[in-house]
Amino acid sequence: MNLWLNRLVPSVPADLTGPADLARYELNNAGIRAEFNENSAMGDAWRVEPRLDGSFLLTGGQTGLLYASYRLITGLVCGEEFLGSLSSAPKYALRMINCWDNMDGSIERGYAGRSLFFRDGRISYDPDRMRTLGRAMASAGLNVLCVNNVNVHDPAQRLLEDFLPGLAALADLFRPFGVRLMLSIDFSQPMRHGVSSADPLDPAVRAWWKETAARVYAAIPDLAGFLVKADSEGRPGPFSYGRNHADGANMLAEALKPFGGYVVWRCFVYNCRQDWRDTRTDRPKAAWDHYACLDGTFAGNVILQVKHGPFDFQVREPLSPLLLGMKHTNLAMEIQLAQEYTGHQIDLYTMIPMWKELFDELPADSIMSIAAVSNLGDDENYTGHPLAAVNLYTYGLMAWDPETDAKEAVTRWIRLTYRFAPEQEQTLAGLLLSSRRIYEKYTAPLGIGWMVTPHSHYGPNPSGYEYDLWGTYHKADRNAVGIDRTHAGTGYLDQYPESFRTKYGDPAVCPDLFLLFFHRLPYSFRMKDGRTLIQRIYDDHFEGLEETRDLARELAAIPFPEPDATVIRARMKLQLYNAGEWCDVINTFFHRLSGVPDDRGRIIYD
Amino acid sequence: MNLWLNRLVPSVPADLTGPADLARYELNNAGIRAEFNENSAMGDAWRVEPRLDGSFLLTGGQTGLLYASYRLITGLVCGEEFLGSLSSAPKYALRMINCWDNMDGSIERGYAGRSLFFRDGRISYDPDRMRTLGRAMASAGLNVLCVNNVNVHDPAQRLLEDFLPGLAALADLFRPFGVRLMLSIDFSQPMRHGVSSADPLDPAVRAWWKETAARVYAAIPDLAGFLVKADSEGRPGPFSYGRNHADGANMLAEALKPFGGYVVWRCFVYNCRQDWRDTRTDRPKAAWDHYACLDGTFAGNVILQVKHGPFDFQVREPLSPLLLGMKHTNLAMEIQLAQEYTGHQIDLYTMIPMWKELFDELPADSIMSIAAVSNLGDDENYTGHPLAAVNLYTYGLMAWDPETDAKEAVTRWIRLTYRFAPEQEQTLAGLLLSSRRIYEKYTAPLGIGWMVTPHSHYGPNPSGYEYDLWGTYHKADRNAVGIDRTHAGTGYLDQYPESFRTKYGDPAVCPDLFLLFFHRLPYSFRMKDGRTLIQRIYDDHFEGLEETRDLARELAAIPFPEPDATVIRARMKLQLYNAGEWCDVINTFFHRLSGVPDDRGRIIYD
Repeated sequence: MNLWLNRLVPSVPADLTGPADLARYELNNAGIRAEFNENSAMGDAWRVEPRLDGSFLLTGGQTGLLYASYRLITGLVCGEEFLGSLSSAPKYALRMINCWDNMDGSIERGYAGRSLFFRDGRISYDPDRMRTLGRAMASAGLNVLCVNNVNVHDPAQRLLEDFLPGLAALADLFRPFGVRLMLSIDFSQPMRHGVSSADPLDPAVRAWWKETAARVYAAIPDLAGFLVKADSEGRPGPFSYGRNHADGANMLAEALKPFGGYVVWRCFVYNCRQDWRDTRTDRPKAAWDHYACLDGTFAGNVILQVKHGPFDFQVREPLSPLLLGMKHTNLAMEIQLAQEYTGHQIDLYTMIPMWKELFDELPADSIMSIAAVSNLGDDENYTGHPLAAVNLYTYGLMAWDPETDAKEAVTRWIRLTYRFAPEQEQTLAGLLLSSRRIYEKYTAPLGIGWMVTPHSHYGPNPSGYEYDLWGTYHKADRNAVGIDRTHAGTGYLDQYPESFRTKYGDPAVCPDLFLLFFHRLPYSFRMKDGRTLIQRIYDDHFEGLEETRDLARELAAIPFPEPDATVIRARMKLQLYNAGEWCDVINTFFHRLSGVPDDRGRIIYD
Repeated sequence: MNLWLNRLVPSVPADLTGPADLARYELNNAGIRAEFNENSAMGDAWRVEPRLDGSFLLTGGQTGLLYASYRLITGLVCGEEFLGSLSSAPKYALRMINCWDNMDGSIERGYAGRSLFFRDGRISYDPDRMRTLGRAMASAGLNVLCVNNVNVHDPAQRLLEDFLPGLAALADLFRPFGVRLMLSIDFSQPMRHGVSSADPLDPAVRAWWKETAARVYAAIPDLAGFLVKADSEGRPGPFSYGRNHADGANMLAEALKPFGGYVVWRCFVYNCRQDWRDTRTDRPKAAWDHYACLDGTFAGNVILQVKHGPFDFQVREPLSPLLLGMKHTNLAMEIQLAQEYTGHQIDLYTMIPMWKELFDELPADSIMSIAAVSNLGDDENYTGHPLAAVNLYTYGLMAWDPETDAKEAVTRWIRLTYRFAPEQEQTLAGLLLSSRRIYEKYTAPLGIGWMVTPHSHYGPNPSGYEYDLWGTYHKADRNAVGIDRTHAGTGYLDQYPESFRTKYGDPAVCPDLFLLFFHRLPYSFRMKDGRTLIQRIYDDHFEGLEETRDLARELAAIPFPEPDATVIRARMKLQLYNAGEWCDVINTFFHRLSGVPDDRGRIIYD
């Protein structure tokens, strides 16, 4: 199983000297003749010029040559013709995968087996699978791999010390693929080494981090940097010392600067102990409230990594205002390939339509990097559901070029992965592209999110988080549902630029799918198409279930090879059950509250 | 820590030859002179006659002499005077404790630490603590101890084989205390020994159980018998072979009969995979539907063990109809000392008022034995909350004589356990006796039950089981709440005798605290005192919280010794938090549904 590279040679040698060497190997095996014109100033960028003799001239940095080669090879597999010259450069400098792997081998929010990197408290991997992953990343244009969970527990707290030689070996392994390692670190790390605090303004702390950085970079000279989750969900951070996050991030940045490393600082700070009775606090406001005032105060090698939405990877969230308002700060947008709230890699959920929507709202220059929480594990097929691999591949294409066409990207993945007839390719592409909207329909309605089984985050539980501490409430009662987040309500919408306030502020104008994210509305509210809100909730859920049945039927007609066919069939059976539960539970929940019957007389259980 | 025997000598010898020997030892140490007139025909029964010289003549079987001695000694500690002769005989033959201890050392629904009997997959105990437990049981009149969980997992499935010598040693240890062991067995046991089925009518199966019984009784001649959970919550049973439960129980009874052993057969059979959309099935009907038709078909040494209510140990349930309708079958009533749904031995919950209510409805002769799920563990004080021990002690007194006065029993426990001034004793007795009603007020309203956090069963979650598979629904909507279980509804009430149907069938007559158990009622329903149902729900919850605060204040004024004082204070703090959560969550839940404001304007959160 080689992800989408099954039609290339099964493996690459273990003794590659670098990306250009790998490029040559792959091109040779694909029967492509090419001359390399290495230009290190071009870095990841590349140019391909076809020659009359059927060979190609490739120009670029070492990694550029590699990316150009994969572009040629995968294009060939997909039946593309290269008649004119072609050039490309990535839109974002760091195109990152964040693995939430723990050293005991478990994966936080992992749905594809155990860790590929760790087992029983130590580094443990299959070098062949690492190279497969490296090829897959390179072929998709991804260049940074953070191997350990942002929640850094023991023994991962000793990665920078006891496990450094093992990490260096792993970095060596990934280097020919143009993939640089990154490490999640624990902000209180110095305190495990005799330093009396982790205060970022304490000279002893700063000295410790400088020495540590020097030691780490001596072992891994091209480490991409440190990923930090601080002061979030119980993790330690600068707040403990009355410092702000610029103090914390800049202190680490100072230590990494001599080595060209980045500090990637996650902006996932909120009060995860909010009392449900507290109506003044509104969790989506938290990131802006914490960080906007710090704009312009971060060092040049700090990147703030901001989740795409203000909550936490729900099916539908507006773009985080922080991504729009930090003009003088390096930003990375964080998305989640792991299907935590989006079906656990059981339900089909292809993400690229969602990313396209995000980029429609996000000026491309607002961010300089992009990160995705990994959907990988040690399952034979790497992603649990074979069709979940489309998310990893198309993420790479989007991270390189956010203007990538969704349908082209998905079709490209299908052609690389399977050998189907053109009409089957078209059908499958259509199913994948529709899967997110179907999932959205049968789960929580119209942007409200969170009606999910607490903790596991699979299956319906309309009030599971309602009386809890996480700040994620719908406050549905007999008359209305939702939180007013406009100026008249919690004021969350005030964090946005004028164009967003106009778009979302008035329920008569606000796009339907965001209605309940921004507004509290009575069930009798008239939607733009004349339906009432409650009828729209019922309709979406019945349609979502019906469309899942159609999806299952159409998918069953596609001749997937084994073992994919069996896995897809088994998971679709679970998805059908899940969709049925969601449809009935959500409809009953709202019917009990509203008392309004379905205007088409479909069954809503008591 | 000697439970309520702290004022006796700290321990008893390891080499006691029998109950009479123990009795002599305890009397000597208490400074009581007595002559024994052993009459083995009297068994557990006894007579005490004071003599002019200050000594006593005790008459009874070996165990009777022991019980009489503890009666004298504990009476002395409590300041009783013995002027005339006194005699007593237990109402119920088997007065059982059922421990749900697993061999890995965990306890299912245990709230007082780990197992006292098992650790790391083997039998492991502290003999001193065993003797303390034996004394405590004897002093309370309890005579059967089932040490392993009714859910028999590996390695407990090998208790009858590999661990038999260890069990025999444990039985030897408990024998002087008049305590006989009982074992939970797995119905499919023969299949682990080369028998091809566990069909109770298969001669090979019957032969296997006979041989096994002979082997077990050779090691433990006074074993009380086998406890069986069959065809329940995933346990194997006769249904697998198209046999009924009389077939299954009688087969085992035949094997145990030569040795005087009982088969205690738990009647906890229901469809634990009921779909929430299925309104025809009503879980409380299950026990009757399964067993009533079998009345009169069970062997003489079979006892059906029936939970006191038709659900599962909720705060308020009507008496199980099965306890009233099986005139020709040996019955035991099962209660639960482990505070699964009643506060996890964090919240104060003294059970004897509840038991008195049960016996008010249950003709005393309807049952011949009684069983309680244990609240014990290896915590220093055995019951986690020091005041939870009152439930173990008073259970013993009730099991001996269901006409025991609740206040006298509780006061007796206080006097044995602590040295308080009389007014402090009175105050504490009052607090203990009121604790159940307080807990009931702040949790689920008026008999509806189940509004509890799923699985853990602590804390509020009004719809936690609502869309699940367990058959425990309230179906609260904007107008009404509850299930109609009368003849017009699910027909559950039809399982009862006429007097019950009259008492519970009409909502205008039905006692308030059972209203929502038997009826579906609109929030506007007028209670007997003129309040609406919804106002009563609000009032109970506000009162329950207020009364918990009073309870905390009054309890804080009682001078408990250490370490009890610290434990009680810490748990009361948790109880106050829990009561606050329950009050607010339940009131908000019903306010959101009903839209009715509190008529006294107290705070109900949005």
